[in-house]
Amino acid sequence: MNIIPPKSGASLVLKSGQRLKVTDIEGMQVSDILFYNRDDVAEKLSSGKTFDYEETILLTKGNYLWSNRSNKMVRIVEDINGRNDFLLAPCDMKTFEHFYNMDGYHPSCFENLYKNLQQFGIEKDDIPSAFNIFMNVQFKPDGKVSVVPPTSKAKDYIIFEAQMDLIVALTACSAKDSNGGTFKPIGYEILD
Amino acid sequence: MNIIPPKSGASLVLKSGQRLKVTDIEGMQVSDILFYNRDDVAEKLSSGKTFDYEETILLTKGNYLWSNRSNKMVRIVEDINGRNDFLLAPCDMKTFEHFYNMDGYHPSCFENLYKNLQQFGIEKDDIPSAFNIFMNVQFKPDGKVSVVPPTSKAKDYIIFEAQMDLIVALTACSAKDSNGGTFKPIGYEILD
Repeated sequence: MNIIPPKSGASLVLKSGQRLKVTDIEGMQVSDILFYNRDDVAEKLSSGKTFDYEETILLTKGNYLWSNRSNKMVRIVEDINGRNDFLLAPCDMKTFEHFYNMDGYHPSCFENLYKNLQQFGIEKDDIPSAFNIFMNVQFKPDGKVSVVPPTSKAKDYIIFEAQMDLIVALTACSAKDSNGGTFKPIGYEILD
Repeated sequence: MNIIPPKSGASLVLKSGQRLKVTDIEGMQVSDILFYNRDDVAEKLSSGKTFDYEETILLTKGNYLWSNRSNKMVRIVEDINGRNDFLLAPCDMKTFEHFYNMDGYHPSCFENLYKNLQQFGIEKDDIPSAFNIFMNVQFKPDGKVSVVPPTSKAKDYIIFEAQMDLIVALTACSAKDSNGGTFKPIGYEILD
């Protein structure tokens, strides 16, 4: 298993049919993940298309995640914890100013996704809302959303099966409130 | 008032401080709307950033709509009907295949947004989830979403105030189920 240290990220190529396992090693740690078509990176993950085709905003085992071109990118083939978020965009420097009143440098999922994707020719503005594994965003009938600690336990995992050749980037999330107040590592491995 | 005929679209430039009024002329008609930074079209509307900063998935009077760079693009200063959607991506040809079992040509919001935006150098893959004015998407605690007829009545309107110089595209939506089974026009006017 590859280890993503706290508040950092990684990227990899996943071929069609291959499976990617992402593990919350210690528990209560979110991982933002993004998918791009390996052969044309302008095709990328889309929350809006996914909510539309899957007819749900809560995605788990059995659901597909879709691209902006209405193609299936991955299928979730296992999901031990079962709670993920696809509503909120990756945390960035301005998120920390807004929600945490921080004005100095702080690592962010946006930076960690971008740093690992730029080698594939992907620009900052090409980073859409990520699929936030293990993130626990609650929503009420009046639409109000709130970020609460993940319910994931140590060694909980999710497995994605690629539906096309993909570039994948993922993080160990850097936003305190999303991770129950502490920063932990994330594990990943390709299963052939 | 400018009229967008059924199943078509329009675009315009809206300067910072100007207000745009969008009217459901006959009632029960959705309009998908998109905003881009006029001076750099790589900055565009983001549902994920908006849900994050506004802490709600139901946006109405008083809320801002935010960009992928965490900047405010517009403020909703009036909203007579009050129900809008920001979860689902614009309908496209594949939407009609998937949900309506159509395999021939059909106008779509995606095409009508793109056709009106390409003159500004905006590509198909640069079209994110739009803000769907008057669209009535219900969601349940288990995450399931469903599209039901709009509750908007004839002459209901919404007003956006630009927070930066903007390129705006908007449609009279082409998806039957989103509009109570019929296709109607949409009106818009710039209020100085």
